[in-house]
Amino acid sequence: MNPSSPSVIGSLVLPQPYLLFLGDMTEPGYAKTAFGLRDWAPERCVGEYRLTPDTVSTGLPAMTSAEAYANGARALVIGVANPGGVIPAKWRASLVDALEAGLDIVSGMHARLADIPGLADTAALHQRRLIDVRVPPSAIPVATGAKRAGKRLLTVGTDCALGKKYTALAIHRALVARGVDATFRATGQTGIMIAGGGLPMDAIIADFEAGAAEILSPAAPADHWDIIEGQGSLFHPAYAGVSLGLLHGSQPDVIIVCHEPGREMMLGVPGYALPSIEEAIEANLMFGRRTNPAIRCGGISLNTAALDPAAAEAEIARVADRLGLPAADPVRGGPALDRLIEHSLA
Amino acid sequence: MNPSSPSVIGSLVLPQPYLLFLGDMTEPGYAKTAFGLRDWAPERCVGEYRLTPDTVSTGLPAMTSAEAYANGARALVIGVANPGGVIPAKWRASLVDALEAGLDIVSGMHARLADIPGLADTAALHQRRLIDVRVPPSAIPVATGAKRAGKRLLTVGTDCALGKKYTALAIHRALVARGVDATFRATGQTGIMIAGGGLPMDAIIADFEAGAAEILSPAAPADHWDIIEGQGSLFHPAYAGVSLGLLHGSQPDVIIVCHEPGREMMLGVPGYALPSIEEAIEANLMFGRRTNPAIRCGGISLNTAALDPAAAEAEIARVADRLGLPAADPVRGGPALDRLIEHSLA
Repeated sequence: MNPSSPSVIGSLVLPQPYLLFLGDMTEPGYAKTAFGLRDWAPERCVGEYRLTPDTVSTGLPAMTSAEAYANGARALVIGVANPGGVIPAKWRASLVDALEAGLDIVSGMHARLADIPGLADTAALHQRRLIDVRVPPSAIPVATGAKRAGKRLLTVGTDCALGKKYTALAIHRALVARGVDATFRATGQTGIMIAGGGLPMDAIIADFEAGAAEILSPAAPADHWDIIEGQGSLFHPAYAGVSLGLLHGSQPDVIIVCHEPGREMMLGVPGYALPSIEEAIEANLMFGRRTNPAIRCGGISLNTAALDPAAAEAEIARVADRLGLPAADPVRGGPALDRLIEHSLA
Repeated sequence: MNPSSPSVIGSLVLPQPYLLFLGDMTEPGYAKTAFGLRDWAPERCVGEYRLTPDTVSTGLPAMTSAEAYANGARALVIGVANPGGVIPAKWRASLVDALEAGLDIVSGMHARLADIPGLADTAALHQRRLIDVRVPPSAIPVATGAKRAGKRLLTVGTDCALGKKYTALAIHRALVARGVDATFRATGQTGIMIAGGGLPMDAIIADFEAGAAEILSPAAPADHWDIIEGQGSLFHPAYAGVSLGLLHGSQPDVIIVCHEPGREMMLGVPGYALPSIEEAIEANLMFGRRTNPAIRCGGISLNTAALDPAAAEAEIARVADRLGLPAADPVRGGPALDRLIEHSLA
């Protein structure tokens, strides 16, 4: 890949439309890729493929690989992510079957598809492709810390998997609808699949993490907004380094703090409580000031999927009142989201 | 490499003794490897090899590769590190010459030796080895955040390249002299060369950074101390993510904050002022508490190499008084270092 083109992953044109593979994943928090593609690129999704009745579902029609191919699908997309990005051995037969049915395989996991025993041989035999969107360019520079022109908004979180990508996508969509010159900058496998470009920030070598964030959102006209998908949380004991590198390199003018009301413990790390929204604001502003002294919090994005509409509205109002900042659920939208966007642009 | 053996890099027995190659580096801050080997493994260093009169010097005898070989050397060690770890083209002829003179080449830089045009062919022709100590094991786990038995001390800093490795080595040496059961844990190329083991923390994929720190200092007897070499600084706009992952995964009971009096601007990033020692303590304790609520600051390590003895002593006393914590220059040692160690062990 050409390291001077930060959007090089976008030039990797993925075969479409997709069959979404959910494996045997029962934890919705790990099915971000499948849900994101369903919600933000529905025209590219033909159906879903689950291994067990307990597996999470996107609600799309259930199909085998052969059925999906007959319905036009040209790639099986692995729509779930395990901790650490390992591909379980029990998925293997289904992946081989997909290749034999005529589908390419697209993966955003850490493990390379070609490292799964037998998969590369089967792909070669059937002239199919194994596409790892998580493989970053090979020559990413060390961050310079130099200020870049243009405006930037970064979504950050109290935990992983609670709406940072959705929030960035929703804000980007709303800005474009308002006629604002804005670009969605994807930092994870799903966002890259949706946007057709970006950098897989958690797959970057640690020394170059902030440098990758710098080239992800290059200098732009003064009134242009990059809306950058956040990763992890400064408070996550495994992934905080990713979050800090992204924060430093993004040099955001505005952060939106993403939170899920009712979530008390962090995903995947037993015994770790979530920080408060206030702590998340404070920590992100404190470290964000290092590369952009003008950083401010544009508001709070609340993932209220588990609440009914009245309870969601009440929670949004309660958080906004407590913090003196706009709060909204970008999935629900409405005037609350408008206020959050207006405060972010102000 | 065997991913279940965190000390696998130690099992890479390096050819010895060394000729220290300094290239054309004029910035002493980037010659940590050469200075570290001279100071902590002098019995393994035959001489030095500089390309220009302006190049920094270790004070060891100047030698060509052929002279070094005649004096017993069996490896040329690249003793300097550029920002980003690139190996300049103008070093190439000297490296080829070293192979032809009978030396292996040992490098701790990001760039692989075998990627330098012609080097692999020359090495093969002369049956010499190209050894990259910065290549980490391939299967590092995601951090669990689970508490481990044993005591840990981590050196942290207000900037890069101001004494975190020296401080850890000096404290380790002093603990061993007191009969304390202690292990030096190396996290960078020089430390790994000195210790014969460790993990190159800045070469780890970002998602696994804290996981690498967890396996670097595994569970140990309750009275055992791991003395862990710090990397970067939470305030460095390029490398803070490395520092935060190491802090979270190390779960230190004690941090020692390393600082160089008089250094006002950060190395390699124009326009960035150093944080105060107080800010560095606060930020490291705030984030360190996430994985070890009992974390505390054991004292301040001051790099007073630029000061005369009286000025150094005065500065050490001034900092200790201002912060109400022990302060010492580990290179100078003495009662100040004893107090810092006693406070850390308390």
